[in-house]
Amino acid sequence: MDLYFLPMACSMATRIALNEAGATATYLEVDPKTKRVLSDGSDFRAVNPLGLVPTLHTDDGVVLTENAAILQYVADRFPDSAIAAGSGLDRSRLQQWLCFIGTEMHKGLLNPLLTETAPAEVKAYALQKGLPLLDYLDAQLEGRDYLLDRFSVADAYLVTVLNWTTALPPIDLNRWPAIKRYYDMHRARPSVASAIAQEYELYRAQIARHRAAA
Amino acid sequence: MDLYFLPMACSMATRIALNEAGATATYLEVDPKTKRVLSDGSDFRAVNPLGLVPTLHTDDGVVLTENAAILQYVADRFPDSAIAAGSGLDRSRLQQWLCFIGTEMHKGLLNPLLTETAPAEVKAYALQKGLPLLDYLDAQLEGRDYLLDRFSVADAYLVTVLNWTTALPPIDLNRWPAIKRYYDMHRARPSVASAIAQEYELYRAQIARHRAAA
Repeated sequence: MDLYFLPMACSMATRIALNEAGATATYLEVDPKTKRVLSDGSDFRAVNPLGLVPTLHTDDGVVLTENAAILQYVADRFPDSAIAAGSGLDRSRLQQWLCFIGTEMHKGLLNPLLTETAPAEVKAYALQKGLPLLDYLDAQLEGRDYLLDRFSVADAYLVTVLNWTTALPPIDLNRWPAIKRYYDMHRARPSVASAIAQEYELYRAQIARHRAAA
Repeated sequence: MDLYFLPMACSMATRIALNEAGATATYLEVDPKTKRVLSDGSDFRAVNPLGLVPTLHTDDGVVLTENAAILQYVADRFPDSAIAAGSGLDRSRLQQWLCFIGTEMHKGLLNPLLTETAPAEVKAYALQKGLPLLDYLDAQLEGRDYLLDRFSVADAYLVTVLNWTTALPPIDLNRWPAIKRYYDMHRARPSVASAIAQEYELYRAQIARHRAAA
């Protein structure tokens, strides 16, 4: 399968999931400004008109978009792996967390804060609405190592978005001890640590590329 | 099962899904200002600390939150009904649409526009980022009656959020003919029409209640 990704973006959750499954994939980096695929210069918007990562091109030739769908696809694609998803209530809880992280944390709170062109009022509004979510999450993580009863694709997504807070001074995770403990623990998990190390190098290269082109 | 809802809010998608399944449920209305359950005055935040609808209390005594999780739960709870969800790629596409509607349309575009207290800059930013999504959706709906190959819980969610645009002058669906056709068609669907009729009355009563209390 081919995974279209931006370094350090939410697509990193799928890389973590694939690492957990011990699975290989072709990783196709997209430039966020030109929306070109780096390896061949092709237009990423021909694959996903929204230009959003992650986008997955499966071995069956299907293009799948949206993080919650792709993460569950990967979990189901490797049923004998550590990342395999359950059924019944376990699956509902997985969907609950994927939806919470995707809508409230990623789209509502963190996306505006990370968007350079977002006006100050937009960032202030995101913080005002979003910080109570971190209180909620902290209470949920109290005494827990995982969102479910084991590391799941929801944890892959959560550690990915929490990682962005290291570049966001208004969100100091030390204020939320259970989240901080959770983040530190999963940040050191091999599947996560290697994904971050790999994508951070690509992220630095992307910055340098944009500087050179400016 | 008990469904905690606000009239005309995103919880209406679950009512539509239950209507489609011919299923009964106990509908518990929450007041958006006091976060009290109308029927007994209890504190809704004791059920869901985020105070967000929909929240589902299943017959097994489980509390489930987040729209994508609840809609899929209802779809799976009634496997012989019209709203039953498929598996494999069909399920992935369902998750893809639920995620798109939840993150991009609901949280990104429509939620800020519908929030009275959101500053003008926040609404302008939501429109600037969000209107291209409607171009995308219009292209996706061109020549289609449903998001999948039949009416699904994703359609229940989409018609629910599109219905909000009737109160949002900046979003005139006539600009997007395929969306307009889709909305008009599903707006008239019995499961949808009865949900809207029922919740609109409750919405008017809520407004009157808030006016009287002011």
